[in-house]
Amino acid sequence: MNEIKGTLIPIGGNEDKGIEKEEMYTLEFVEEGILAHVVKEAGGKDANIVVIPTASSIPIEVGDNYLKAFSKLGCKNIDVLDIRSKEDSETEHALMLIRNANCVMFSGGDQSKITDKIGGTSIHKILVDRYKNETGFVIAGTSAGAMAMANEMISGGSASESFIKGAVNMYNGLGLLPDAIIDTHFIRRGRFGRQSEAVAKFPHLIGFGLAEDTGMIIKNGNDCTVIGSGMVIIFDGSTLTHNNEKILEEGTPMTMTNLTIHVLSNSDQYDIKKREVKVLPIEAPFI
Amino acid sequence: MNEIKGTLIPIGGNEDKGIEKEEMYTLEFVEEGILAHVVKEAGGKDANIVVIPTASSIPIEVGDNYLKAFSKLGCKNIDVLDIRSKEDSETEHALMLIRNANCVMFSGGDQSKITDKIGGTSIHKILVDRYKNETGFVIAGTSAGAMAMANEMISGGSASESFIKGAVNMYNGLGLLPDAIIDTHFIRRGRFGRQSEAVAKFPHLIGFGLAEDTGMIIKNGNDCTVIGSGMVIIFDGSTLTHNNEKILEEGTPMTMTNLTIHVLSNSDQYDIKKREVKVLPIEAPFI
Repeated sequence: MNEIKGTLIPIGGNEDKGIEKEEMYTLEFVEEGILAHVVKEAGGKDANIVVIPTASSIPIEVGDNYLKAFSKLGCKNIDVLDIRSKEDSETEHALMLIRNANCVMFSGGDQSKITDKIGGTSIHKILVDRYKNETGFVIAGTSAGAMAMANEMISGGSASESFIKGAVNMYNGLGLLPDAIIDTHFIRRGRFGRQSEAVAKFPHLIGFGLAEDTGMIIKNGNDCTVIGSGMVIIFDGSTLTHNNEKILEEGTPMTMTNLTIHVLSNSDQYDIKKREVKVLPIEAPFI
Repeated sequence: MNEIKGTLIPIGGNEDKGIEKEEMYTLEFVEEGILAHVVKEAGGKDANIVVIPTASSIPIEVGDNYLKAFSKLGCKNIDVLDIRSKEDSETEHALMLIRNANCVMFSGGDQSKITDKIGGTSIHKILVDRYKNETGFVIAGTSAGAMAMANEMISGGSASESFIKGAVNMYNGLGLLPDAIIDTHFIRRGRFGRQSEAVAKFPHLIGFGLAEDTGMIIKNGNDCTVIGSGMVIIFDGSTLTHNNEKILEEGTPMTMTNLTIHVLSNSDQYDIKKREVKVLPIEAPFI
């Protein structure tokens, strides 16, 4: 994945009012400020935007909600493409939409559904190819849609049991950002521990923890800029001096030392390959 | 606080079954393995142990529970001293108990009650004096009782709003461990963010995040050994290269870079002054 020309925008999810099971209640607020960035990166109001609510168990409502949210921002060329099976990922209609899109937006829900229904299909291949080769092509995703961008994808895991080996579950993602592990709803759901365990498992990868209403614009598959009202927590395991994850039995508490953490907020930048932070000068404006 | 001869044992609290408001339900399980360490450090079964349930809103039940727990371990000389006011901290009976104790054990509850009712009183002075000068004298505390040991004490704060400046509340603690900020119930209650903000406020202090059923035996006011079934998260802010906490307005998301984190578990050791971890060799037994 060298010389990436497309743009990736993972988003930490929206405000969830604490009612996880009732997805309907989470629909009220779609992060408009963040979506405005998505539209801008995709070329503006005339961009062809395809919303994929595959992760969701209520795809119609989620699709409608994004239609409304993008319409509010003045966009007119919006399609909802609900993929429910690998076969759905091979239809001519689906491939046409993905080929013509300036931006593909993955909704929240269950990230495993995204990789189960889309991973390895023609849609996946077109997405990877266009993301690699086309300047201005945008892949955005919120919550599950952001987590699925990684190669080593967090598919689940208990926040309260974390740091006990085996508390985090990993699965194959779409591999759009192979150097990172992405977690979302990071602050409200207390997901430090599970990201730490994920980084202990894959210390050569960077761990991103995205707060709600917060995202990153990633260019060149490498240069990240924080957008939104919250923060991005970055886990750099390259400094670890001790990490017993590999040798521990399941259910045993872990030891890891000298993990480096960055807390970044709006407009701060991060270079994945160099593992380098560029923080915003104090006087800079909010973007 | 140089040349400390006493022993400090902060404990992360017990298993809370997720019912925070109903303190009664949290009483079923008192961390026996950890209490066994407390008894051992205090000199064994014949030690005079004084339980102080001042932080609790149900001191009689909490006191009874500790009486039972210590009795189970074979201890016979256990007193419960419930301090409800600064005046209670000056009675001859109270001072006599504290003077004769081999171990004082602070219960959980609200840590501000401990410093409000005991801070600056004769009990506080005797505790500090004996802790400083008497080998084998033990001060233990669980949850609120552990948090109150610090000088800069976390008195409250929202876990879900953390990393937004002003989400954590600080107050004066008992100053028994002036180089540290202590937080408890660390994993289950997702308190990474508030400890990070506390360390951003006081980057010269070490932040300890104690999981439930987990504690540290601290000797010389400096040498920490992890005990119990969970983990201790250590925040070292001395490596920070950027920290805008001082200049940010309340309600603004923070930026901090190059925070060092250690995740320690049973028998791992930490030297506060040297900021140095000594992790357990793989083959060592559980203590």
